Amino acid sequence: MSTTSARAPRAAVGDGVDRIDTPALVVDLDAFERNLDTMAAFARTSGLRLRPHAKMHKCVAVAQAQIARGAVGVCVQKTGEAQALVDGGVSDVYISNEVIAPHKLERVAALALRAKISIAVDSVLGIERLAAAVHARGARVDVFVEVDVGQGRCGVAPAEAGALARQVVAHEGLRFAGLQAYHGAAQHLREPAAREAAIRHAASVAQAARASVTAAGVACPLVTGAGTGSFVFEAVSGVWGELQAGSYAFMDRDYADNLPAGPRFEHALFVKSQVMSRGAAHAVVDAGHKSHAIDSGLPRVWGLECSFANGGDEHGVLRAMHARGALPALGDTVWLVPGHCDPTVNLHDHLIGVRGGLERGVVESVWPIDARGACD
Amino acid sequence: MSTTSARAPRAAVGDGVDRIDTPALVVDLDAFERNLDTMAAFARTSGLRLRPHAKMHKCVAVAQAQIARGAVGVCVQKTGEAQALVDGGVSDVYISNEVIAPHKLERVAALALRAKISIAVDSVLGIERLAAAVHARGARVDVFVEVDVGQGRCGVAPAEAGALARQVVAHEGLRFAGLQAYHGAAQHLREPAAREAAIRHAASVAQAARASVTAAGVACPLVTGAGTGSFVFEAVSGVWGELQAGSYAFMDRDYADNLPAGPRFEHALFVKSQVMSRGAAHAVVDAGHKSHAIDSGLPRVWGLECSFANGGDEHGVLRAMHARGALPALGDTVWLVPGHCDPTVNLHDHLIGVRGGLERGVVESVWPIDARGACD
Repeated sequence: MSTTSARAPRAAVGDGVDRIDTPALVVDLDAFERNLDTMAAFARTSGLRLRPHAKMHKCVAVAQAQIARGAVGVCVQKTGEAQALVDGGVSDVYISNEVIAPHKLERVAALALRAKISIAVDSVLGIERLAAAVHARGARVDVFVEVDVGQGRCGVAPAEAGALARQVVAHEGLRFAGLQAYHGAAQHLREPAAREAAIRHAASVAQAARASVTAAGVACPLVTGAGTGSFVFEAVSGVWGELQAGSYAFMDRDYADNLPAGPRFEHALFVKSQVMSRGAAHAVVDAGHKSHAIDSGLPRVWGLECSFANGGDEHGVLRAMHARGALPALGDTVWLVPGHCDPTVNLHDHLIGVRGGLERGVVESVWPIDARGACD
Repeated sequence: MSTTSARAPRAAVGDGVDRIDTPALVVDLDAFERNLDTMAAFARTSGLRLRPHAKMHKCVAVAQAQIARGAVGVCVQKTGEAQALVDGGVSDVYISNEVIAPHKLERVAALALRAKISIAVDSVLGIERLAAAVHARGARVDVFVEVDVGQGRCGVAPAEAGALARQVVAHEGLRFAGLQAYHGAAQHLREPAAREAAIRHAASVAQAARASVTAAGVACPLVTGAGTGSFVFEAVSGVWGELQAGSYAFMDRDYADNLPAGPRFEHALFVKSQVMSRGAAHAVVDAGHKSHAIDSGLPRVWGLECSFANGGDEHGVLRAMHARGALPALGDTVWLVPGHCDPTVNLHDHLIGVRGGLERGVVESVWPIDARGACD
């Protein structure tokens, strides 16, 4: 079987920012580290575990930076992501999502011989298949029962949680670790009051699920969940014991468009682009939606009063926001703040880490995006 | 500098379709080859050159299948794509887009020592930088002047084409090859009459540009352009001599939503997904917008009367379209037709080619997506 070759990085350690080829995914390391510190301090003072979601960055180096600041491990959504991070040396990975294919569960069980692995379930079939794979390997896996706390996607109704928890504990090698309770749709409600109300509802559902588990005679050690848009509300609820926020580390345009509640995070992820065509009233940059995901809207042009219009797969079209506004010239660098971190990172092979700012900084790190493309 | 490792293919040659891991990008080879034959026959009977756009498939094997059926070469949008295809043995590549960075133009010139390379320009600066790079290498590059025929993105006004053509021929190593005239926005107008009107306008702009070139004393050998939505109209115009359509080979949901004009193409590109969670009235598959691009809308569920709702990066939510409609069961395979081929292919590392249909076929080929991620 043939494999594709990975792309060459767009810069080397020691390069000035001006030398980074475009389009490139650039991390402002100073802002990034401040974001990590802010969230680590919040979790510490709240007395909560922090398990950042690595679906966002897919990068061993970022996971290690989070763990070095006190994170207990990371979450992922996919078996392939777990594999890439464990291969890179991350020792505690939670697949906060259902896996139903037996051959994938065999991979999960094999990983559990090399690292602490947890996984979410929401069906008897899923538990039975997981148990069979774990038993065959003589492995041990922590299992969270996922409860639908408002997302309407995966997860069971709260009254069903107890029966599934009993199913889990009936199997050798499976430990019931608690409840997965994440409300994705709440993250992007612009008004803090709306997010707070959604999480108040999610808390009541999670409490009902916990009651169902304990009524079934099973102890419920932990409720885990929360995202960058809502974690302050989960934190004060008294229900969650672990926060899974991910985007706070890089901070995208969409999360920045939320009216804030709690600690603030800075944009640390940028697409460096270049003007490759100029019209009288528009400039075209060499970054389209093959360089940045647009599922949560278009990027914001950073430091220029220009709007960004979708120019297709490989182009973005900039126009001045004001009649007397300036457009960048042919060949100029334009920095973009992506609409959504997670799928933007997934389009690239490397994170180019810059120290000293986007204007005159120097490349300090070139991190492979280890789980890029690991949607399996 | 570290590089990322490529993902392992989701299947091996000889596997049954049921063995392909999910989510995977699967090509129905029978439908694909019929599409290639249909377009090759159209170009032949129209007396036009066919230079399919490889930005769509980014794959040496697909380019070679097109060239074997008479295509003169392929187009790409990016230097990195050209490099990947030339490295794979494609000997005639046209970068139908502007390149302005000197270090990229050095790469273009280096490629031109190994293959026939053409490129588009729309500025004096671009021509001068290209000429300098080509001269330094002692290379030879064909140059098309891009005219804005209605897209409002790159390209000059028709009256400026002659002056740029003169700039091109003034430089040793640059040959003026003609005009780039592509109307991207016309491709997705649903009504054939609307597409025809847009291309009629584009034809008049291209003719004016050609007149400007000949008035400047430069011969204009070729007008190149057209896409899957409009090529029948360019073909009958008498203006274009070369067609650049790309999506016809795989055919996505968005192009299939156009009311047809001319030859019909079949869906040949699918995402194989699996139901990994079931609710009472919905099924969740393991394919979200990290598996298929959603810039042109959501995928269509193939062969089931189910709607597809966006479930985020890693999930899709299926609901029955009718009150008595059936939902797939936990673990079932679900085939999706992506909304847009090009950025969907760019998310994956391999095209899994299946012979004999999606139900009972066998994997015949595993093609690396050679230029995946080559947005540079």
